[in-house]
Amino acid sequence: MPIIKRLTDVDMYKFTMEQIIWKNWSGVKTKFGFRNRTKGVRLLDYVDIGRLREELDHAQSLRFTQPEIDYLSTIKKADDRKMFSPGYLDFLKGFQLPEYNLEKGSDGNPVLEFEADWPYASHWETIALSIVNELYSESLLNGLSKFERERVWAEMITKLADKIKILKQYADIIFSDFGTRRRFMMEAQRYVVMTMAEELKEQFLGTSNVMMAMEFGLVPMGTSAHELPMILAAMLDDGTDEDWVNTAQQLVLDSWWKEYGYGLSIALSDTFGTSWFFRNMTDEQARNWKGTRHDSGYPLVYANKAIKFYERRGIDPKEKLIVFSDGLDIQTIIAIANYCRGRIKHSYGWGTNLTNDLGFRTLSLVVKALMANGHSTVKLSDNLAKALGSPEDIERYMRACRYRRKTKQYLRS
Amino acid sequence: MPIIKRLTDVDMYKFTMEQIIWKNWSGVKTKFGFRNRTKGVRLLDYVDIGRLREELDHAQSLRFTQPEIDYLSTIKKADDRKMFSPGYLDFLKGFQLPEYNLEKGSDGNPVLEFEADWPYASHWETIALSIVNELYSESLLNGLSKFERERVWAEMITKLADKIKILKQYADIIFSDFGTRRRFMMEAQRYVVMTMAEELKEQFLGTSNVMMAMEFGLVPMGTSAHELPMILAAMLDDGTDEDWVNTAQQLVLDSWWKEYGYGLSIALSDTFGTSWFFRNMTDEQARNWKGTRHDSGYPLVYANKAIKFYERRGIDPKEKLIVFSDGLDIQTIIAIANYCRGRIKHSYGWGTNLTNDLGFRTLSLVVKALMANGHSTVKLSDNLAKALGSPEDIERYMRACRYRRKTKQYLRS
Repeated sequence: MPIIKRLTDVDMYKFTMEQIIWKNWSGVKTKFGFRNRTKGVRLLDYVDIGRLREELDHAQSLRFTQPEIDYLSTIKKADDRKMFSPGYLDFLKGFQLPEYNLEKGSDGNPVLEFEADWPYASHWETIALSIVNELYSESLLNGLSKFERERVWAEMITKLADKIKILKQYADIIFSDFGTRRRFMMEAQRYVVMTMAEELKEQFLGTSNVMMAMEFGLVPMGTSAHELPMILAAMLDDGTDEDWVNTAQQLVLDSWWKEYGYGLSIALSDTFGTSWFFRNMTDEQARNWKGTRHDSGYPLVYANKAIKFYERRGIDPKEKLIVFSDGLDIQTIIAIANYCRGRIKHSYGWGTNLTNDLGFRTLSLVVKALMANGHSTVKLSDNLAKALGSPEDIERYMRACRYRRKTKQYLRS
Repeated sequence: MPIIKRLTDVDMYKFTMEQIIWKNWSGVKTKFGFRNRTKGVRLLDYVDIGRLREELDHAQSLRFTQPEIDYLSTIKKADDRKMFSPGYLDFLKGFQLPEYNLEKGSDGNPVLEFEADWPYASHWETIALSIVNELYSESLLNGLSKFERERVWAEMITKLADKIKILKQYADIIFSDFGTRRRFMMEAQRYVVMTMAEELKEQFLGTSNVMMAMEFGLVPMGTSAHELPMILAAMLDDGTDEDWVNTAQQLVLDSWWKEYGYGLSIALSDTFGTSWFFRNMTDEQARNWKGTRHDSGYPLVYANKAIKFYERRGIDPKEKLIVFSDGLDIQTIIAIANYCRGRIKHSYGWGTNLTNDLGFRTLSLVVKALMANGHSTVKLSDNLAKALGSPEDIERYMRACRYRRKTKQYLRS
């Protein structure tokens, strides 16, 4: 059985982002690339490159089915208008994943890149990540007996039960599954999503996985990704605009607000540093937008920064939301909830530790935008260990964004 | 689905004992009775007496099928002769469980008794116990969600995996499943038996459950039960034989040896106290019999007593076996193995903690012989908390067996 069976087996934000990209920047030449950030793990020691190629080829052979298009056409925005336009759905009917480049890297990891027009290349992200994660999981299960595999599954269930038991004690913790890209395997994610939907009806908001949202009648959840400001900034990085980073960021916020309005107005703030982001957010944006997403740096520091930001702008932070989505586990979620309770709204996009908690070491894999129309992309984030780009470009963006390197930079393992 | 689907869903020793009973004492009028020894648990708070009646009625409707008779006819003794005679197998073809008496007891437990000729009444023992245990388990699962039930099963698997991991480090620990009577449910026992057979091929000797031995191609394991010496002693308890207890015990050993020889020569020693048993075992029996079964009292004290017994008789204990079958868990098994290693052979008949380890409180239930031809039975055991009989009868048997009450009697919970 192939790992990816449907083109909707991706995060919801791929569609919301791709609709805007398709509408505004469909001809931008982009390159996305796969990166293994896991220290000490040479992926090709686990994953056979031939198997990887087979799975990528199979994903490329997929087309959207009519039921998938029909489902997407039923999704509504907060104002009850359709989320996706007929034109975009027509585009999807003819959609196919573009070519990929795959070879063995000298560091023991696959070199896997996607060069294509932006709305096409973008769709590979979570698909490529799910595939590599599942091939890695396969290698972990290889050599295990039937019972030992059942034990792995049982461990997943008991750990899930522990989470549920704790979450039932914190009725104000509401969360979504954001674990498509990091899942142990599709069936594990399916089981977790189905169980959370049954056991924590009031607290489980939905899943980022469109295929599973469709299957289980859940709300497809999502915000947006770094690729939007990264690619737009790279496109504008030709020396003609001194403030090109903020021009790009504002373009993202404006086009997003125009398309989706209040319902999806969660701003991803850390692409070039959250301090810079808040400095550049207008009062109107601060008032209008529902909230922000935390994806790097200390979450409590972030919460404190957001609360102060709103207060300085004369906005009640209790009316604003932070979606936390960085390295969550149950203890971290509780710590964040205890900090935010009564101060600012909080919800959680739970990834790796939700869909890949079976007792094995997990991987830190990403697929990120690398190039746009010949210009390199840059991401800084609130944790420089997550920064992307050449050292020179990173320094240049840091200067442009007055990014302050912390004396004790928090490094991800 | 009924709980008991086959008349072979019983412990193997029922057949080996019943063959001797059928041959020698088929007309003895016996009464067996169910007892709940679990402190603080009123079974009728959990088990519906109507459901219990239904299950008992269904078991009573069962007959041995031809494949079961055929299977029993293939079982061989150590000397390669057939374990069961054609005459006994003919008896089984016409076999049906006899009537039962069931009512609500004033203590919140069911009064459940089986009055019939010995070879018939005897067959109820493990069937009645499996039924009551499974109805209790059903009540524990009632009200749990689908996922919570899966969590219970997952906990069984992870606990089983822990046991297997530890047992793989002790290659000299060999054991059998003796958990039919105490199982959480049939499917749980089936899973445990199947898994142990796959994961610990060299250490797992087989199962006492005949139906499962047949299904999985395992060796049906078993020794013998207290009912043999208890009932024979009760039959002889008419004042004509001053040494009636030992006459009965010798009758058990002689008839067993005559029927099954060395292969099944594991003597259950604690019916009237192990000290008394060893005093009365002849040198020839001590030499001939493969070993003994421990079923009450401190296991290491028992091992020490057995070793000294063999040494006093000039027999090398390293050639003799103790089958431990009382309240085993993995830590107790390892403690016993560490004590016996190099001194005396040891193996384990693992019950409750093997087939009923899912995180729930387990029950201590027994079905025991109460009467034989109008005389009450008595069991002393090496732990007076397990003694059966009226106080007067117990005192009388204790005097006859010179049973020494320990100053600090070990009481089972």
